[in-house]
Amino acid sequence: MKKKLSLAALGGAALATLTPAMAFAQEAAEAAAPAAASDTSVFVFNSLLFLVSGMVVMFMAAGFCMLEAGLVRSKNAATICLKNIALYSVAGLMVYLIGYNLIYGAPDNPYSGSWVPWGPDDSDPVGVGYAAHSDWFFQMVFVATAASIVSGTLAERIKLWPFLIFVALLTGFIYPIQASWEWGAGWLDARGFSDFAGSTLVHSTGGWAALAGAIVLGPRIGKYVGGKVHPFPGSSLPLATLGTFILWLGWFGFNGGSQLALGTIDDAISVGRIFVNTNTAACAGVVTAMIATQLVYKKVDLTIALNGAIGGLVSITAEPLAPMIWQSIIIGAIGGVIVTFSVPVLDKLKIDDVVGAIPAHLFCGIWGTFIVPWSNSDANFGVQLLGIVAIGIFVFVISLICWLALKYTVGIRVTEEDERTGLDKVELGLEAYPEFSKG
Amino acid sequence: MKKKLSLAALGGAALATLTPAMAFAQEAAEAAAPAAASDTSVFVFNSLLFLVSGMVVMFMAAGFCMLEAGLVRSKNAATICLKNIALYSVAGLMVYLIGYNLIYGAPDNPYSGSWVPWGPDDSDPVGVGYAAHSDWFFQMVFVATAASIVSGTLAERIKLWPFLIFVALLTGFIYPIQASWEWGAGWLDARGFSDFAGSTLVHSTGGWAALAGAIVLGPRIGKYVGGKVHPFPGSSLPLATLGTFILWLGWFGFNGGSQLALGTIDDAISVGRIFVNTNTAACAGVVTAMIATQLVYKKVDLTIALNGAIGGLVSITAEPLAPMIWQSIIIGAIGGVIVTFSVPVLDKLKIDDVVGAIPAHLFCGIWGTFIVPWSNSDANFGVQLLGIVAIGIFVFVISLICWLALKYTVGIRVTEEDERTGLDKVELGLEAYPEFSKG
Amino acid sequence: MKKKLSLAALGGAALATLTPAMAFAQEAAEAAAPAAASDTSVFVFNSLLFLVSGMVVMFMAAGFCMLEAGLVRSKNAATICLKNIALYSVAGLMVYLIGYNLIYGAPDNPYSGSWVPWGPDDSDPVGVGYAAHSDWFFQMVFVATAASIVSGTLAERIKLWPFLIFVALLTGFIYPIQASWEWGAGWLDARGFSDFAGSTLVHSTGGWAALAGAIVLGPRIGKYVGGKVHPFPGSSLPLATLGTFILWLGWFGFNGGSQLALGTIDDAISVGRIFVNTNTAACAGVVTAMIATQLVYKKVDLTIALNGAIGGLVSITAEPLAPMIWQSIIIGAIGGVIVTFSVPVLDKLKIDDVVGAIPAHLFCGIWGTFIVPWSNSDANFGVQLLGIVAIGIFVFVISLICWLALKYTVGIRVTEEDERTGLDKVELGLEAYPEFSKG
Repeated sequence: MKKKLSLAALGGAALATLTPAMAFAQEAAEAAAPAAASDTSVFVFNSLLFLVSGMVVMFMAAGFCMLEAGLVRSKNAATICLKNIALYSVAGLMVYLIGYNLIYGAPDNPYSGSWVPWGPDDSDPVGVGYAAHSDWFFQMVFVATAASIVSGTLAERIKLWPFLIFVALLTGFIYPIQASWEWGAGWLDARGFSDFAGSTLVHSTGGWAALAGAIVLGPRIGKYVGGKVHPFPGSSLPLATLGTFILWLGWFGFNGGSQLALGTIDDAISVGRIFVNTNTAACAGVVTAMIATQLVYKKVDLTIALNGAIGGLVSITAEPLAPMIWQSIIIGAIGGVIVTFSVPVLDKLKIDDVVGAIPAHLFCGIWGTFIVPWSNSDANFGVQLLGIVAIGIFVFVISLICWLALKYTVGIRVTEEDERTGLDKVELGLEAYPEFSKG
Repeated sequence: MKKKLSLAALGGAALATLTPAMAFAQEAAEAAAPAAASDTSVFVFNSLLFLVSGMVVMFMAAGFCMLEAGLVRSKNAATICLKNIALYSVAGLMVYLIGYNLIYGAPDNPYSGSWVPWGPDDSDPVGVGYAAHSDWFFQMVFVATAASIVSGTLAERIKLWPFLIFVALLTGFIYPIQASWEWGAGWLDARGFSDFAGSTLVHSTGGWAALAGAIVLGPRIGKYVGGKVHPFPGSSLPLATLGTFILWLGWFGFNGGSQLALGTIDDAISVGRIFVNTNTAACAGVVTAMIATQLVYKKVDLTIALNGAIGGLVSITAEPLAPMIWQSIIIGAIGGVIVTFSVPVLDKLKIDDVVGAIPAHLFCGIWGTFIVPWSNSDANFGVQLLGIVAIGIFVFVISLICWLALKYTVGIRVTEEDERTGLDKVELGLEAYPEFSKG
Repeated sequence: MKKKLSLAALGGAALATLTPAMAFAQEAAEAAAPAAASDTSVFVFNSLLFLVSGMVVMFMAAGFCMLEAGLVRSKNAATICLKNIALYSVAGLMVYLIGYNLIYGAPDNPYSGSWVPWGPDDSDPVGVGYAAHSDWFFQMVFVATAASIVSGTLAERIKLWPFLIFVALLTGFIYPIQASWEWGAGWLDARGFSDFAGSTLVHSTGGWAALAGAIVLGPRIGKYVGGKVHPFPGSSLPLATLGTFILWLGWFGFNGGSQLALGTIDDAISVGRIFVNTNTAACAGVVTAMIATQLVYKKVDLTIALNGAIGGLVSITAEPLAPMIWQSIIIGAIGGVIVTFSVPVLDKLKIDDVVGAIPAHLFCGIWGTFIVPWSNSDANFGVQLLGIVAIGIFVFVISLICWLALKYTVGIRVTEEDERTGLDKVELGLEAYPEFSKG
């Protein structure tokens, strides 16, 4: 979510990088026909959008947690819960200490140049047009989302503390640096790269980091044996379903809040369009994933349908505003297809992604980012590819280096015996479901 | 939720069907004493009400899913999860393709007459007074709610795809047609029928469709044997409780959002009243259901207490604005009683309603709609009965025809062996809780 | 949440008890530079803050329910679910019948002196500045929160109906009386006691009531035997984690909504600051609880990490607005430490607190209230101690009397045999997880 307040781009104007103050003035002018809201009302509306959106995006942490707890085996369910609440907490502190400054260190950061992490500055709130802390909160929960993606892929075999060290690196440095290229008015933004709410900047970033981790970490014991794939069924599909619904809910804030403003009629219309497109893309992702699994496997697979929803949501995230509804359906539908057919590909490569996060977040993130110019004429395919590749290489390579460094220093994988026992007993000394343990 | 923007009716004025533009002007005049909000602020407030309300109503899909997943046996829990996310997705697409046009094809639909489903038209947003897409989203999630009611009643024995075909018919045609009679400014609206947020239009409609399905489908194997009722305990009452809490949360959006406007002091007061009445009706439903089960069965039954909450909520949905708080308590309390005592009635008729959706949504929907004139002097009992009966006959008969047509073509029920095995293994090839299967 | 509308205190002015009308005027003046919002917009913003915040605070009831259902043994899980939905319902009715009048019977209660519980009065909405019902709803869900704290501590051994009688006394009398001392502009408020969103008034109050109950009720059978502590592991840690995330979500409404106003730029900035501080305090609580358990026990304990989040949240609740972010981190971090190290203390005293509510809500509530003057120069340590002690003595003593009266009349504890069997079978005649029962 780039820090601009104007929707002018949609109307066909060049996607100039407006300073907030300029955008503010421009909007006031644009909205002249119906009586504009007062400066105060605009300010409150903008802040309220950040706050309400931020709340449901924060709740996506619970969605990821339930999705992952439902898809791991019960012997690892408590550990994945701990990882999820811990990664959100680490993200919250790292964004404060370092991350936010790295993303927005450029022009419109009120404490630019300063590394003293005393948080947002309210010194000129009216000029900025929203409460600085409300924006800060919204940015923070975005960073946490990227980290949540990683935990699912690497579940059931990674050590707790090394995982959290990586989360600190991801949320303090890796995410912020690449995000600054676009949302910090950096070089990708200058080239016209377009990623409205973060198909690439958030979801693919999480996916690349997860992929690098999965390669370094290796598959779970017994997953690929004798040339065959041995699925490990998730311990609670109702919890996984709940998690998916929570993510779907949170996505209205994720995409809708990325409009970054709600003080004009144009903004309200935009957020409405974003809600509808986000929703229908997810619906389409579910339906195509169901149909595809029915046709190919003769049965519908619930976990693939759930991933179809997420795939549809990720696919529309790069551009939830410009598409007509029918376009959002197609964008999401293809997301559902991507999710369905890329699981076997990963298995062929012996990349063990416990919850299917790489197909949903990385592959659909690429798809969604690439297809932006179809509906948004201000974007172009070349630049979209440039952004996808540049961020992909950066995040993947740096993540790989981090994972390798962790592997050869503190170690990242539990012992074979511990993995067989389950991380809950080994790392936490308890069980997620102590009374329901398998005979 | 009829498309009117004024609260004038509450003040005693005739409940005229105002065009939005008229209502807009009227409100501006009414609010003259304190400085009115600008056109832009009114527009944003109205849109925001739709968006925030729509979000939590969307989340009711998760509530229904958890309630139903908790109340079915574990061998069918994954399938009911799939049905719930699938029905929401099908509803989303059908409302887009057909349903919305059918409801609001009349005067105030910007693309009236057109069957090209390109979605809401923002061409004259100021005149309408809210973002067209925000309203569209709010309508869509309402339609999904009706479909969610059906899945619970028919769980554990219905085939997946035929169920989804019925959902497509319900959300694309049956619901929209009857909704157009009232909320599309149709004949029931002209007669003065009053159903604020849909006790009849949404909840009874879902209930009638479920009842028709339950009759055609028949009870689960072993439910009624030897003249006795054999209860099948739900597999996870904590999940069922969670689902009920989520529904309760969503109901604030369901009823509060049905005010359809938030740009005036009157509107804000109304939404506040609606929240309080919705809440206390549910509280009362829980308490009376608990007391009733304690008195009759000497024990409190958790599932009936949960249904008491839902019964109270459905009961207040037809008129959550006009009642004094003490009236909302009585309306909800009777809802709780209805839920408690109608379960045995259904059992006597051998109608197998897995989650008790027919008592909560159909019976309480009738009760809530009937009692509207007690608190709202603009309604009258005769017309309320007319609406209840007309919509009841229409939905029940058409649903019955649809279910019979499905039964004698594709078939709607799994084989006896498959039912005993459980739908999860048969239809999905997996288990909801693979590690916790019963000895 | 005291009923004041101004943030002037933050700017250094004396914390005068403003009447709403005065505050209203003052704000209009303060906001003169940028165009102020119209009276109507201010009214709607204020009401909307109450409604949206109230919704997520209501959802905290689900959070407590899941937390407690996950931390009890499965044989008591359905009963704790029932207690949670029942206590919320009883609270809703008692606040209506008695409680609200007791809190705000003083000057700014429109129906002061009247005991006729016809609910909020909208007769002069503009003067008050918000929809009376929206405020009523927000107050009601606060009261329910205090009751939710009690159910967790006393789980697995208390009888259902006596527990609910205590809930009625707590929500109808005990909470309202002490809350009136501060938020009803009573004697503690007059002395300058400062408890922004209720570290003491809500959380410690719930904690004191729980402590009194735990002492009267005694520990669960087998918990303290032969001088040793025998932990009873919770039946579903994923549900407990979900509950914690829901509480975290709700806390944004709990603290943010306690700003009580959103119609000015100052208010929006304040709510933004509150969100950020609330979030980072919780993050810090998780991290310190994890580090502390790792250092002391050589393993991280998930349940303590969850309680660390809650401890951080309770700690920041007395003053979420004034601290700089780094201060909120320290305040929350110490909350996480308190939670970690006070569990063994309670165990040494043989006070059996099933879910650790006393450390999180009572001890951290005291800590958070005490430390207010560190960031808010309008508070002073002496008065903070006075408030902590006065409310502590009042709530503890009255609760103790109530519990003893219940014990020696209707009895509060199930029989030893029933406790061993589990409350679900005994009190409800069912099982929470009938298919997963232990060998």
